[in-house]
Amino acid sequence: MKIVVDAMGGDFAPEAVVEGAVLATREFGFPVILVGIEDAIQKELDKYEDAKDLPIEVRHASEVVEMHESPGKVLRSKRDSSMKVGLDLVKSGEGEAFISAGNTGAVLAYSTIILRPLKGVDRPAIAIQLPTQKGFAILLDAGANVDCKSNQLFQFGIMGHVYAKYILGMEEPGVGLLSIGEEDGKGNEVTKETFRWLSKSHIRFIGNVEAKEVYRGNADVIVCDGFTGNVALKISESLAEMIGKNLKTLFTSGIVPKIGYLMLKGRLREFKKSVDYSEKGGAPLLGVNGVVIIAHGSSSAKAIKNAILRAHEFVEKKVNQHIREDIEYNLDSKGSFWQHIKEIVAGHDENGGVPHKAEPSPVEDDIDTDTEEIETTEDKKPTEEPEK
Amino acid sequence: MKIVVDAMGGDFAPEAVVEGAVLATREFGFPVILVGIEDAIQKELDKYEDAKDLPIEVRHASEVVEMHESPGKVLRSKRDSSMKVGLDLVKSGEGEAFISAGNTGAVLAYSTIILRPLKGVDRPAIAIQLPTQKGFAILLDAGANVDCKSNQLFQFGIMGHVYAKYILGMEEPGVGLLSIGEEDGKGNEVTKETFRWLSKSHIRFIGNVEAKEVYRGNADVIVCDGFTGNVALKISESLAEMIGKNLKTLFTSGIVPKIGYLMLKGRLREFKKSVDYSEKGGAPLLGVNGVVIIAHGSSSAKAIKNAILRAHEFVEKKVNQHIREDIEYNLDSKGSFWQHIKEIVAGHDENGGVPHKAEPSPVEDDIDTDTEEIETTEDKKPTEEPEK
Repeated sequence: MKIVVDAMGGDFAPEAVVEGAVLATREFGFPVILVGIEDAIQKELDKYEDAKDLPIEVRHASEVVEMHESPGKVLRSKRDSSMKVGLDLVKSGEGEAFISAGNTGAVLAYSTIILRPLKGVDRPAIAIQLPTQKGFAILLDAGANVDCKSNQLFQFGIMGHVYAKYILGMEEPGVGLLSIGEEDGKGNEVTKETFRWLSKSHIRFIGNVEAKEVYRGNADVIVCDGFTGNVALKISESLAEMIGKNLKTLFTSGIVPKIGYLMLKGRLREFKKSVDYSEKGGAPLLGVNGVVIIAHGSSSAKAIKNAILRAHEFVEKKVNQHIREDIEYNLDSKGSFWQHIKEIVAGHDENGGVPHKAEPSPVEDDIDTDTEEIETTEDKKPTEEPEK
Repeated sequence: MKIVVDAMGGDFAPEAVVEGAVLATREFGFPVILVGIEDAIQKELDKYEDAKDLPIEVRHASEVVEMHESPGKVLRSKRDSSMKVGLDLVKSGEGEAFISAGNTGAVLAYSTIILRPLKGVDRPAIAIQLPTQKGFAILLDAGANVDCKSNQLFQFGIMGHVYAKYILGMEEPGVGLLSIGEEDGKGNEVTKETFRWLSKSHIRFIGNVEAKEVYRGNADVIVCDGFTGNVALKISESLAEMIGKNLKTLFTSGIVPKIGYLMLKGRLREFKKSVDYSEKGGAPLLGVNGVVIIAHGSSSAKAIKNAILRAHEFVEKKVNQHIREDIEYNLDSKGSFWQHIKEIVAGHDENGGVPHKAEPSPVEDDIDTDTEEIETTEDKKPTEEPEK
């Protein structure tokens, strides 16, 4: 099993990425392919005496995707970027998983187009681990899909359940739907319909979860559209930043508070680290044919190492196979349920769409892609059945 | 100018509400009408020796709306609640403004049905003041409308501008649109269209604002739909709660941190107070014919006093008149702009609706209201022209 790593992605690339690969291969032993500008990668590798003995391959890609380039432009113009070359390796089966700390939008767009969504999944979703009062919760979608229909939110619920169960080892994860009231009937049009669907699925659906409950940790998985998810995460960062700054100001004016602050400084640093999810191994892009992990832009070598370990877990624990099976379980063996859904859709919901029918990717609609470059992966050997 | 106060609304009603009215009338001198169960109110008033000399009237209403009753049920069954009697006083012109710390959904529903939306406004919105690194920002809608169209978000922008300008005294408030990227093209379908409309309005539109910017305070007004706004506020509360608990745990294990914590405790309390917007005079429901202030459920007497002062300001500074004029300015004198919008709407946007055409209230659609009870207020003397 080979893990493909975008050596050019992230604020500290290629240094931190190469170091992360060295740390991971030393510690875990499974092979890594570093993709990017060969000379730059080799120069970094040469810093480590044992690098030539480690299972690290280098694959050249001449172009680099910058952090703030528009994904559409990247797809059109960068045919030999480290992201595209890396994802092609996963598509061809040479690699099992892809990791990048680069431009999130570009990773998302490339992954969707090159790997294609899994059968039964309309759109991939980014799943983030949030610290809570009780440990961790998974929130998805964290920003991949701004306009979501209820069938997509339903699939996010299934995918989040699989992630929590097989990667985080939760026996029966509680899946909640982010809404503005706990009562069953509360929410907007999309969440209300999603509520009905999740209620009838095989996962442990705990109903609506209000945002004030998120950090209390009573839900293991929190389902929302990417717009709301992005706002929820980013406003949390914004508030944490303000609280940090205000506390510092309050604590460092006046001699008594200043001494108090100095006594607490170590603990504050510890706390900051405990809630910093950039160290937690990155965020998986769930629902594509292949494992893709999006690492934080500011990833350190340790964060990259953790992401490589996380990617390995996703492959080994056959997460994609479980997602497909769980979605199929709802499609097939609950025929009457889906029949019911179809009737609802046909009857009075013109926005819902038939849940299991994949629609064209929004990325493709958006951009002027050469279609001959985009091959279907339908016949491709699924990545979640690794070669032994 | 009389301010009508729901004496039965809030966790500490009627005690805290009556005390708030006593404090306000003592300090500011303008008359207050307390609505609710007469005996209970009088009993509270009797605690204050000077109460009979203060400009406080009591108006009996036999029913009380409980905090967790469904608004639909309340509207159908409670014909003599303190909310309904109070809002009827504003509708009849006897009172100028209404304040309640009770069930928010019920205040919203009663206000929309009894007072009706202002001309040019489709739906009223709840506007919250948020603390930021630079002072305060207004966020609307904080939860009144879960499914918003772009014409509504556009109106929220105008209403937020008026609030910031005339109540908070900002010369040229910067109005931002909450979205998931700063670039013009980022957002979902609704925000993208709202972006175009706000760009062409007369207010100072500063473009998209990412959630990570909210607490930095670069936008004076933040526009979003009520679902997103509610999530943003509630998740902030949730995170603040977790940080508070975690800090306390971290700080009180081990003797050095414990001493440090004790030295800082006072400052922490100060900080908590500075970000507690329940003390800030409540959240106005913008866009109805009349002034309505929704106070926090846990309002203290001081919070009620502040809400009474805030309501007085809204009347005195003719906020509703300014909202109407500013919306009309965009409707009339920018004919070509609205013509353009109409063409867009007629052409390819079946969701947009004609921006200035009010649609039936969702509350009415929802419930089984006796229509004979709901009179139109079109002929009513506008409340923002107070009797001198």
